[in-house]
Amino acid sequence: MTKICTYQFEEYLRFVESFHGAVAPGVAAGGFMVDLAMSRMPEGTLFDAICETTACLPDAIQLLTPCTVGNGWLKIFNFGRFALSLYDKYKGEGVRVFLDPVKLEAWPEIKAWLFKLKPKSEQDKEVLISQIEQAGHSVCGLQPVRVKAQYLEKKSRGRITTCTVCHEPYPARDGVVCRACQGQAPYISFTPSGQYWD
Amino acid sequence: MTKICTYQFEEYLRFVESFHGAVAPGVAAGGFMVDLAMSRMPEGTLFDAICETTACLPDAIQLLTPCTVGNGWLKIFNFGRFALSLYDKYKGEGVRVFLDPVKLEAWPEIKAWLFKLKPKSEQDKEVLISQIEQAGHSVCGLQPVRVKAQYLEKKSRGRITTCTVCHEPYPARDGVVCRACQGQAPYISFTPSGQYWD
Repeated sequence: MTKICTYQFEEYLRFVESFHGAVAPGVAAGGFMVDLAMSRMPEGTLFDAICETTACLPDAIQLLTPCTVGNGWLKIFNFGRFALSLYDKYKGEGVRVFLDPVKLEAWPEIKAWLFKLKPKSEQDKEVLISQIEQAGHSVCGLQPVRVKAQYLEKKSRGRITTCTVCHEPYPARDGVVCRACQGQAPYISFTPSGQYWD
Repeated sequence: MTKICTYQFEEYLRFVESFHGAVAPGVAAGGFMVDLAMSRMPEGTLFDAICETTACLPDAIQLLTPCTVGNGWLKIFNFGRFALSLYDKYKGEGVRVFLDPVKLEAWPEIKAWLFKLKPKSEQDKEVLISQIEQAGHSVCGLQPVRVKAQYLEKKSRGRITTCTVCHEPYPARDGVVCRACQGQAPYISFTPSGQYWD
């Protein structure tokens, strides 16, 4: 039986569905990638994770490792590459796992999905998930990495102060008012009475 | 009994512990914030989430709503403000929930935590979690928001091509080689045989 960490493959797919909302190919393939990376971490290592895409893969990492976005152990660098690294959180030494295009030649549905060679409507999801299961680790590339020192230090937000515009706390180093009140908010907000606020 | 969405408070704390790795005050308080925001969304609304900090709060959103980082329904704008918005993913209309500093005056441990008024070692975590439970929604501020149109559109990564340096697929719009190979990688990588790669 195919396993991903402690889960049977089918069991993992149900877990993915409940968290991610659907059995996404990216979280399925990501499961094998995380499984492979974890198998290379020396026993007892406290590790952090780096994910090189926002698509799907962060959820495989969050489901299978102790690393989440909210606890700060998973950092996302959105390079649009389907790859992840796990590394010793103090020393920075670890492994990077990616889907190797050469190895994907044997798996046309996986290759078509990764390279977006056909529109999603033409994807045969059943075949795709089945190829992902059959391929398992065999389509993964693995390389040693050493995370640069500046990314190992936990960044403190520094002193917290009150924004004179919104009156909410924010990191003082961001300037005289918070970054949202500097115009970076992705929304227009209103007072509870419905007045324009932004 | 205090409830957070469908969970008893204690049950929610165990859920937080298993996902986030610890009963963090931010995920506990965040639970009430998400619960309040969800209660204001009209029945049946398909909603997305915006979180204004990377600290703790994204995990409350990921645990209690269908929105995760990996499925793209949760977006993080790291303003260092402890606030979240849920909004209709097509119309952009929704609510923003934040911790209101005025209302926190009655809850000194919560205020001290949010404004980082004392070092973590001096925090009385039991009192803090207990105050978070007792305060519940009462320390939250709520305001209507309308998310700007450009943030409602799903951003496609566009055409995928092969990087001539690392030979991995990446979004063609990023340039002639992928962003990691342009020097943005947070790590030094090696070939599997141990040769320097970056």
